[in-house]
Amino acid sequence: MVISMRGDATEDQIQGVIKRLSELKLDAHRSTGLNRTIIGAIGDVSAVDTRDFELLEGVDEVIRISAPYKLASRQFKPDNTEIVVKNVVIGSREVVIAAGPCSVESREQIEKIAATVAASGAKILRGGAFKPRTSPYSFQGLEEEGLKLMRQAADKHGLAVVSEVMDASQIDAMLDYVDIMQVGARNMQNFTLLKRLSKVDRPVLIKRGLSATIEELLMSAEYVISGGNRKVILCERGIRTFETYTRNTMDICAIPIVHKLSHLPIWADPSHGTGIRDKVLPMGRAAIAAGADGLIVEVHHDPAHALSDGAQSLYPEQFDELMRELNIIARAIGRSIGDIS
Amino acid sequence: MVISMRGDATEDQIQGVIKRLSELKLDAHRSTGLNRTIIGAIGDVSAVDTRDFELLEGVDEVIRISAPYKLASRQFKPDNTEIVVKNVVIGSREVVIAAGPCSVESREQIEKIAATVAASGAKILRGGAFKPRTSPYSFQGLEEEGLKLMRQAADKHGLAVVSEVMDASQIDAMLDYVDIMQVGARNMQNFTLLKRLSKVDRPVLIKRGLSATIEELLMSAEYVISGGNRKVILCERGIRTFETYTRNTMDICAIPIVHKLSHLPIWADPSHGTGIRDKVLPMGRAAIAAGADGLIVEVHHDPAHALSDGAQSLYPEQFDELMRELNIIARAIGRSIGDIS
Amino acid sequence: MVISMRGDATEDQIQGVIKRLSELKLDAHRSTGLNRTIIGAIGDVSAVDTRDFELLEGVDEVIRISAPYKLASRQFKPDNTEIVVKNVVIGSREVVIAAGPCSVESREQIEKIAATVAASGAKILRGGAFKPRTSPYSFQGLEEEGLKLMRQAADKHGLAVVSEVMDASQIDAMLDYVDIMQVGARNMQNFTLLKRLSKVDRPVLIKRGLSATIEELLMSAEYVISGGNRKVILCERGIRTFETYTRNTMDICAIPIVHKLSHLPIWADPSHGTGIRDKVLPMGRAAIAAGADGLIVEVHHDPAHALSDGAQSLYPEQFDELMRELNIIARAIGRSIGDIS
Amino acid sequence: MVISMRGDATEDQIQGVIKRLSELKLDAHRSTGLNRTIIGAIGDVSAVDTRDFELLEGVDEVIRISAPYKLASRQFKPDNTEIVVKNVVIGSREVVIAAGPCSVESREQIEKIAATVAASGAKILRGGAFKPRTSPYSFQGLEEEGLKLMRQAADKHGLAVVSEVMDASQIDAMLDYVDIMQVGARNMQNFTLLKRLSKVDRPVLIKRGLSATIEELLMSAEYVISGGNRKVILCERGIRTFETYTRNTMDICAIPIVHKLSHLPIWADPSHGTGIRDKVLPMGRAAIAAGADGLIVEVHHDPAHALSDGAQSLYPEQFDELMRELNIIARAIGRSIGDIS
Repeated sequence: MVISMRGDATEDQIQGVIKRLSELKLDAHRSTGLNRTIIGAIGDVSAVDTRDFELLEGVDEVIRISAPYKLASRQFKPDNTEIVVKNVVIGSREVVIAAGPCSVESREQIEKIAATVAASGAKILRGGAFKPRTSPYSFQGLEEEGLKLMRQAADKHGLAVVSEVMDASQIDAMLDYVDIMQVGARNMQNFTLLKRLSKVDRPVLIKRGLSATIEELLMSAEYVISGGNRKVILCERGIRTFETYTRNTMDICAIPIVHKLSHLPIWADPSHGTGIRDKVLPMGRAAIAAGADGLIVEVHHDPAHALSDGAQSLYPEQFDELMRELNIIARAIGRSIGDIS
Repeated sequence: MVISMRGDATEDQIQGVIKRLSELKLDAHRSTGLNRTIIGAIGDVSAVDTRDFELLEGVDEVIRISAPYKLASRQFKPDNTEIVVKNVVIGSREVVIAAGPCSVESREQIEKIAATVAASGAKILRGGAFKPRTSPYSFQGLEEEGLKLMRQAADKHGLAVVSEVMDASQIDAMLDYVDIMQVGARNMQNFTLLKRLSKVDRPVLIKRGLSATIEELLMSAEYVISGGNRKVILCERGIRTFETYTRNTMDICAIPIVHKLSHLPIWADPSHGTGIRDKVLPMGRAAIAAGADGLIVEVHHDPAHALSDGAQSLYPEQFDELMRELNIIARAIGRSIGDIS
Repeated sequence: MVISMRGDATEDQIQGVIKRLSELKLDAHRSTGLNRTIIGAIGDVSAVDTRDFELLEGVDEVIRISAPYKLASRQFKPDNTEIVVKNVVIGSREVVIAAGPCSVESREQIEKIAATVAASGAKILRGGAFKPRTSPYSFQGLEEEGLKLMRQAADKHGLAVVSEVMDASQIDAMLDYVDIMQVGARNMQNFTLLKRLSKVDRPVLIKRGLSATIEELLMSAEYVISGGNRKVILCERGIRTFETYTRNTMDICAIPIVHKLSHLPIWADPSHGTGIRDKVLPMGRAAIAAGADGLIVEVHHDPAHALSDGAQSLYPEQFDELMRELNIIARAIGRSIGDIS
Repeated sequence: MVISMRGDATEDQIQGVIKRLSELKLDAHRSTGLNRTIIGAIGDVSAVDTRDFELLEGVDEVIRISAPYKLASRQFKPDNTEIVVKNVVIGSREVVIAAGPCSVESREQIEKIAATVAASGAKILRGGAFKPRTSPYSFQGLEEEGLKLMRQAADKHGLAVVSEVMDASQIDAMLDYVDIMQVGARNMQNFTLLKRLSKVDRPVLIKRGLSATIEELLMSAEYVISGGNRKVILCERGIRTFETYTRNTMDICAIPIVHKLSHLPIWADPSHGTGIRDKVLPMGRAAIAAGADGLIVEVHHDPAHALSDGAQSLYPEQFDELMRELNIIARAIGRSIGDIS
């Protein structure tokens, strides 16, 4: 942390800052320049509120130098984190694709979709069982029965399972069925939930919140890792901007940024990131071209009658086309998509 | 809902839209203009996903005409909702001020602050007992003991109590101590929590999420009202924009907008809305000048040693000055602040 | 400027940074902490691109400590800048109100509006003569003839004149008619225009761009002041956010922020800031309550037939009501509005 | 345009709206539903301000159905616009790459860079001659001499030239040297400039403003086309959001959206879109994977000593690597990059 004093700060004001630092057990490093004095604070500043110093007399600006996360940073762990889930390694050279419906609707539906996405090369089946929705008047999910149906369909086709946990009370039930626990964008800063997931032996996929900075996304990962669970996957799924043509603006650049700042794998969700089917292919390709370690994509055999998010679900043949394109793009940057060739 | 067909849409495509509407039990109203056909959908469209129509052949654009909320709208209930809490009426001509520390820290602290804010004219004591924080390394609150201390301090000074509920599992314990249940910005779309609060006989204060539109804030109110609890208070507390000087940008205009769209009272939180003490007075005044029905303000007798958010807490004498200024401003627009004069 | 090295930076990398600083004639101040080395750069860094250092080997982060503007800063000039325009002093204890139509449309129109706003207490007449519009199909202004009509109307009622200059080629003609040269939001970073205005002996009102930070607004002021014209007035008029109910989100907090960072006066434009008449009164009051030094407001005697922006123009009687409310609010914070009482 | 009346609107209020429409020579189409009346306005609404209707008594909401642009829309011209510039066709199956320095600095510099980018497969040389900068204390460009040097270097290597026009007064001089006139992000709504360019027989590359919606970008194209110049190329270069890690957030999804709404070609600028060298490759690949018709990229043989924007300029060998990757990605989606193979 660096504290820049105003040009007209008095010696008393400078001493005031140094005294406050020593109360917090931080060492002060003083540099006196031509126009102003700068004080560097050395020590553990992770729990310091920089605003407390901004308000001291004579202070011009306070800057936190070190990122507030540690365990999630690439400085802490230079090598990529690789996470083994069934027969894939997330965060490796291989790009991993999860696909499936927004919601599990019936045995027949999930079985049909699992078969088709597996045939196209997906390794993980996605599907929601708990579906609280923006409108209190919409379909709310099959709950545990949905998880059971998804597990059976996945096993039949050699797929792993990823599904969203909405509340800490659902964790235990989900452990019986799910290989990756997904934390939705709205829960990215639900610290109660994150703490509970940090005690579970199961990878956690954290989606970026609609108005979350990349630093905040990494802080959420820090919560889980600091509690003991190192298997964290991040996911870009669109942020809110003034552009209204699509629901969200996918921040594709978050992918190379996360790769620079952190050792954790990062995926992209072009279905929620765009909200509309005909943009899923181009944005899925863009994410892989930018270096994403995987995608999570909504696919439905009959989107027009899907109980939720049909508008952003791909038809099976579109998903198959996407997989063929991604295969070429992945190879252009020295990666691959499983056994497709 | 209005569906605008492309200029080159065929009759078959138009019939396709009309057929889809009838499947959803909606009446279609067809208008044929010079350049294009427009189809109005009449009926209950609250659960329709407009994107399903955008993707039909020949469709140019789909617009939802009626707002997705009903019970929260001023069209549904033209008169202001007034909510009685102890001896104040929120949503009436009287502007109501809630004040207190970010977190309850000790009996002495909450008692001292309750005395001072009551003396300045606050009617409600605010204070947090459950404090999950952005950093896993910070103070996390006194929990139920904090609620108890706050209740005692409030009762001694004739104040009501508002405190944040973080999780549905805390509701029962809180009912013993709290007059208004606050839903934080990060939980604005925690639908599990909102549903539970809709069954409770206690006013609910819903804070706007950092990236929530005003319409989404009103949808969250709709969740609570549609479950049976009509006592909802809304609160503007800053949205996220590109401006970085303050943590958030307070959207003061949300106040008159909510008053136009809804019958519910709207407050403002200039402490979280700005994040820094010296902006709380001007923004508190601005909110009341724009017509806010109340404020929720952080006050601490020793902000430099507060366990959380000291940087945005007012000193008691600043709060007293604010109350005197607000009293004049409120009267400039035909309102008042309790018995201050 | 402070350069924070990575924890694993080598001595060679540290020396590389110091060498680069010395090439730029900057002194390096080295602080070695437990975990990392921090290098302070002392000297004139105003033309340094911080990214050049971010890309050097071993560098973690680069932070510009001093603001990139100087002459516009309160550190450079602690006292408020006061600007005399005819018989008012902008930036003084007195709040100054400019009002008038969006566009000058005819002699009768500008005369009628000048009479009414003067009667309500405005001191400055606003009106546009050059009106390039978003749509190429709309009314484009009366040009020099409009300026002439506005000057006559203003003189008759003892008002000063503010009008927007769209292009450097219009400056000379405007000098004959206009007391304050307004730079519109879209031109806030038109540096060609700003440089020309820096050579003119006339106050310049710079409106904040839709996506401009407060720092960028102050940099635009710096352009004008550094060229020799110290009479700069800033104006908040709404920024672009994800909220779509109004065209823009007025960042009321920019007012106290500018007052802290700079000695320049700051106004607000609630007409463009909201885009709709019924929000102009609450937002005008909010701006003055937050400490604005003035307002610029659109008023029209017949908004329904205004050639531009009628929807955001106040009726004369609404403007009169606003002035009465502002008078009380200004006094609540120790200011006044001219000779109204 | 569709006007939705409030549920409690009176017959008089409905007649008021219809009367106003007829004053504007628009036909009214009335639909009476169970809960409300909807009025469709048929005719040329391009110059109507929808807010004028929002303010009429009894009106709930007004929605513009048809986009405010026509000539730029794909409905008006279903086939892609192809623009021939020297020996390339922009908007065709071929992806076109423009590359070069931020600023022309000297004969040697531009010659060296032209040679290297041509060797890697670029077809167009980019470079700035007029460089007004955010800071008044920075390098401001070689002006006409720069254009001359760039033209010579381009001709020697068979390249076309694109350069930015900052002001209408520069157009004539530029016509002697430049094949494509670039309008910068800050000038996207400089309507004076756009009008002048609409009269010139030279393609115009319009960059999206930092806070411009896609619709506004298309409106700027409309300005140029409606004045007579149909050769418009659009360019995504990042928008401003709350994310601060990079200067801007590249809205990659704007590429497929523009392709859906318009027949005009769309490029991307990953250099300004990210502001930092190590993000240019991933974002350049992402743009092409999403379907961009071309890129404009900054390349410098010695970025550390570039007079402007060195931090976002690629080294020649990085640019060469990018071209090889793009070549594979382009072919994955059925396109190509010139004669590279």
